[in-house]
Amino acid sequence: MLLHLHPQSTEEDIRETLSWLAAHNNEPVYLPGAGSGRIVLLAPNPDCREQFGLLPGVCKATPLFSPYKLAGRESCPDDTIITVGRIQIGGGEPVVMAGPCAVESREQTRLAAQMAKEAGAQILRGGAYKPRTSPYTFQGLGRAGLEILAEVGRELGLPTITEVITPEDVPEVAQYVDVLQIGARNMQNFALLSAAGESGKPVMLKRGLAATIEEWLLAAEYILRTGNRQVILCERGIRTFEPATRNTLDLSAVALARALTHLPVVVDPSHGTGRPELIIPMARAAIAAGAHGVMVEIHPDPCSAKCDGSQALNLAELKTLVYEVNATGKLMASLATERMEKR
Amino acid sequence: MLLHLHPQSTEEDIRETLSWLAAHNNEPVYLPGAGSGRIVLLAPNPDCREQFGLLPGVCKATPLFSPYKLAGRESCPDDTIITVGRIQIGGGEPVVMAGPCAVESREQTRLAAQMAKEAGAQILRGGAYKPRTSPYTFQGLGRAGLEILAEVGRELGLPTITEVITPEDVPEVAQYVDVLQIGARNMQNFALLSAAGESGKPVMLKRGLAATIEEWLLAAEYILRTGNRQVILCERGIRTFEPATRNTLDLSAVALARALTHLPVVVDPSHGTGRPELIIPMARAAIAAGAHGVMVEIHPDPCSAKCDGSQALNLAELKTLVYEVNATGKLMASLATERMEKR
Amino acid sequence: MLLHLHPQSTEEDIRETLSWLAAHNNEPVYLPGAGSGRIVLLAPNPDCREQFGLLPGVCKATPLFSPYKLAGRESCPDDTIITVGRIQIGGGEPVVMAGPCAVESREQTRLAAQMAKEAGAQILRGGAYKPRTSPYTFQGLGRAGLEILAEVGRELGLPTITEVITPEDVPEVAQYVDVLQIGARNMQNFALLSAAGESGKPVMLKRGLAATIEEWLLAAEYILRTGNRQVILCERGIRTFEPATRNTLDLSAVALARALTHLPVVVDPSHGTGRPELIIPMARAAIAAGAHGVMVEIHPDPCSAKCDGSQALNLAELKTLVYEVNATGKLMASLATERMEKR
Amino acid sequence: MLLHLHPQSTEEDIRETLSWLAAHNNEPVYLPGAGSGRIVLLAPNPDCREQFGLLPGVCKATPLFSPYKLAGRESCPDDTIITVGRIQIGGGEPVVMAGPCAVESREQTRLAAQMAKEAGAQILRGGAYKPRTSPYTFQGLGRAGLEILAEVGRELGLPTITEVITPEDVPEVAQYVDVLQIGARNMQNFALLSAAGESGKPVMLKRGLAATIEEWLLAAEYILRTGNRQVILCERGIRTFEPATRNTLDLSAVALARALTHLPVVVDPSHGTGRPELIIPMARAAIAAGAHGVMVEIHPDPCSAKCDGSQALNLAELKTLVYEVNATGKLMASLATERMEKR
Repeated sequence: MLLHLHPQSTEEDIRETLSWLAAHNNEPVYLPGAGSGRIVLLAPNPDCREQFGLLPGVCKATPLFSPYKLAGRESCPDDTIITVGRIQIGGGEPVVMAGPCAVESREQTRLAAQMAKEAGAQILRGGAYKPRTSPYTFQGLGRAGLEILAEVGRELGLPTITEVITPEDVPEVAQYVDVLQIGARNMQNFALLSAAGESGKPVMLKRGLAATIEEWLLAAEYILRTGNRQVILCERGIRTFEPATRNTLDLSAVALARALTHLPVVVDPSHGTGRPELIIPMARAAIAAGAHGVMVEIHPDPCSAKCDGSQALNLAELKTLVYEVNATGKLMASLATERMEKR
Repeated sequence: MLLHLHPQSTEEDIRETLSWLAAHNNEPVYLPGAGSGRIVLLAPNPDCREQFGLLPGVCKATPLFSPYKLAGRESCPDDTIITVGRIQIGGGEPVVMAGPCAVESREQTRLAAQMAKEAGAQILRGGAYKPRTSPYTFQGLGRAGLEILAEVGRELGLPTITEVITPEDVPEVAQYVDVLQIGARNMQNFALLSAAGESGKPVMLKRGLAATIEEWLLAAEYILRTGNRQVILCERGIRTFEPATRNTLDLSAVALARALTHLPVVVDPSHGTGRPELIIPMARAAIAAGAHGVMVEIHPDPCSAKCDGSQALNLAELKTLVYEVNATGKLMASLATERMEKR
Repeated sequence: MLLHLHPQSTEEDIRETLSWLAAHNNEPVYLPGAGSGRIVLLAPNPDCREQFGLLPGVCKATPLFSPYKLAGRESCPDDTIITVGRIQIGGGEPVVMAGPCAVESREQTRLAAQMAKEAGAQILRGGAYKPRTSPYTFQGLGRAGLEILAEVGRELGLPTITEVITPEDVPEVAQYVDVLQIGARNMQNFALLSAAGESGKPVMLKRGLAATIEEWLLAAEYILRTGNRQVILCERGIRTFEPATRNTLDLSAVALARALTHLPVVVDPSHGTGRPELIIPMARAAIAAGAHGVMVEIHPDPCSAKCDGSQALNLAELKTLVYEVNATGKLMASLATERMEKR
Repeated sequence: MLLHLHPQSTEEDIRETLSWLAAHNNEPVYLPGAGSGRIVLLAPNPDCREQFGLLPGVCKATPLFSPYKLAGRESCPDDTIITVGRIQIGGGEPVVMAGPCAVESREQTRLAAQMAKEAGAQILRGGAYKPRTSPYTFQGLGRAGLEILAEVGRELGLPTITEVITPEDVPEVAQYVDVLQIGARNMQNFALLSAAGESGKPVMLKRGLAATIEEWLLAAEYILRTGNRQVILCERGIRTFEPATRNTLDLSAVALARALTHLPVVVDPSHGTGRPELIIPMARAAIAAGAHGVMVEIHPDPCSAKCDGSQALNLAELKTLVYEVNATGKLMASLATERMEKR
């Protein structure tokens, strides 16, 4: 059930209505919006049905059809913009997140961060807890890695993002970084989704290797349901029969997610392709398909990287990527404006 | 590194050798075997290399090539047999695990367990914590469901198996049931794998929807590495383009797992096909491909089931399944004997 | 539209009815059946609707819902049995077709055929026209290969099967062999399907690498529509993300095809797995899932084979395969009888 | 083997060298190039090895490693540009091909062509021979369709493209249209590839639903080997587990094909996505990934279309598509120039 609020509804109206709905077990969630917000009832109480339209500030009550009660455009037509430091994700300009696959040392992380900064990337990524296929490979530096990442980010003025892999680590990780990342393998680790949501930090949710778009958006619902509305979707390639690329980057999922949801969508062409020569063209294509940004792996010395070195970009490549992503972003913004004007 | 033990090595030899190896940071794991066991060094210390062959009870030291240091047949050629109550999994006779997708009530669980018992199934399955795609669908009864499952199992003399979905739940779940199940979505939830391993209980590890066979066996390594050697592999279908079946049950993965690993392998044709008319033929085929058993969903009243009712078997179907699985198992055992004799 | 014939309808009734239906543009196809046959109207003429039930020999007319108008069990409930020489495909006993991937020489083909004969295989396979991914690899001996295959088959009393890859080759190929094979790449080469159908020979139709079960059965319709009712379906593995096997052999497709259609179904575990150690277990599993036979590749000297040598079986392996396939087939027949009796 | 020609080599040198190579059974293929062309030997005769470097006009002989002897950049580093009427495919400006899925009538085709013309599309597509999954659905108008397409194209001054589905139809189809299309189902119909190559017409080769990029390029070799160098590659989506889109459009295949081959690459977002709202963003993304153009389906009255009406664009959508594809193409050209200048 969806309660549409009057443009003139007051904060007090809304507060009053929300507390009445909660008291009557409707599980209301308030979604502020341009002009008029909405209230989604996650579990509408049938006994209250006749009152919904009469509550203070409420203009009308309509059934909610979308399975994505909170992520769908049905309950929130306007794009969500997430602010991280001075960066906006989901706004008009594309964001580039860059950094090493894994934090290996202070030196390596600082060099990578300087590359990111110099090239114009806006957010620093780096893995401290690494989910690895084999228990016998490098598993990340853990808390020491978090400290390095946070310190280097602070030093260079770059907000940071890192992956969290178990619910109990969430509070600690949330103290160190600006954005929590849920990896592809954990897209349906529902306890982790809830814990990440409850941290109050922005959460970037990677699509699972074999997750449908519907499953991806329903995983986002697990985070949104905690009251945390700062969810960023990240397409990173799906598993197919094609051996020439590490995964198959599914940009139609980006275009479709943009149509179905108000959440920002970014793309990881590093994991998505696994081939350095494809990362720049696919980053441009991602923006052209509607993505709000890209996340890429870089390394000051790819040959010595402890994981995924073969797909890490060098400084010159990163500069080209940032330049071309920005140029493509500018064109997309102007095409969007022209489409609007033609209507 | 693999240390082969003398057939005559004594328990004291082994104890002494293990403690020396541990003291010198070799991460030794002892794998007893028919006649002569072996010691796997997960992290062989290069400084000790020359001593390995000279340690008490050790016959020779050879390099270990398999990525599955503990799961592979290279370090343990003989089939592992896991004992659950009076049931053996991995031995000569196929095992049938049956029960409802979710524990919904005491009544429903008891009726399903009676069906299982009457048909000759040996282990009772039932979900208490359900990982669901949408946060808005039935999530299981939780601890209350565990209590029901354990009580009904005890009443009917059936060992029980249930899914555990987060590391912190493991100790509680392990108190109630005989076998822990790791679901397909959590195959690479490494913290959960470790926690399940540490419970000391047998663990059934389902293959992920898009997991390669290599990734599946490496996930098993995460459990085995805790010292828990009671791991059962479960093939339950992979994601493909085919819409006519819920998943594509990959029985060649069963045949290949049997060749690569000493761990028992079972098959879940209910989730694997999602179509009741395919469950019995695919259960037979699973046994013919080398599986040690099958797990199926049953329900006393499929139409009212809270999840997956459409693929639940009724009593007559379950009886046929058990009968045909056993007949196929008997044939496989006799063919295996004939093959042995011909060599 | 489906016209059900009286058990007492005479040949003359049927002839008269068919000619009336054809004259009125209904595209009738007569499907004889145990007791009472049926007539399928591929393009029922609405103007004739009221007459359908009144035609000589017709008992009643019912709408036909299945998209597989001729392949589906709706229009022909009884299993189709195809006779090739003294061999029956689709009857109670499993059939083993064996032979080299490609006919390379008279000597190699004769040796392979002797292996097939000695092991108890009933049909000789061998490729003369080879559809190869690259134009720069061995493309088969063409007509010379057909001559060798036919001669060797005659010599050893083995019926033969070979692939046909273009419509214009069909008449020539049909003169040399007993069964025409349509390969996976050509499953939707509709002109080839029609040409093969028109040859009047039995046609084995392999499932395409990415064909759904529905598409496979609709491809069979293209053959059946020519009036040729001798179609054998062959599952040979589909493309998935799994790299450990050449393809993923989809045995649930076999079980489902058995439910949906009256046509015989065989399985090719050689191409389906690409690994010799999996061929025997998957052949057993195929029969247990309901297949009427298997097709496997053998070679007198696998190391020198011009294509697919790595998956060719040797004599001892083929003997084991035939023995275990027959034993599994016998068990399946007896289980089927028991299921019947219980009803 | 690859023979590099002197920039100063004369036409006579080349003629002489080619005839010597052919006479000695080397299967030479001459690939003219900017400055200096090359000669590829498809079957280098080992006995001639020492002479290769000494032949008239030859500068040096090097081994050829690429499996794509003719399609690969190794033997032809410069982009191939194909001229169709006044249109260039593979040059600096993106090409839009548009038209109905099937030619249904003169009226419908003329209306669609007028839409294409008005919107600025440059090539008219339309199916006369339709390969359909079921034999019971509309199979195209055949020769009558070809006549309509050719006439409407002539009338409006639009070059035409249509699918050819069997080798024997090639000569007739080639008389009517400017470009032959090989559909996804026929990508490995090798007789058809050769026949299309021999027509001398430009051939657009769609990637198969489950074809790897390697298989796609090797299929192009079958056409190129006939001496026809006018091959256009077309990505149209692959089969994956994702049900929300008709296929998964694999734009990384476009970026990779651009790196591996000199042939032009276009994209079909209509079949690739099957959803009208995704066609425009994916067309932009295709160009941003490096495609030389797009092919889309339009219909004057989508609701009455005999096939694929649900994915047909209307006039306003097509105008937006052409405008945005061109704008993206212009940006890509300027980014490419800037990258060149920076080197």
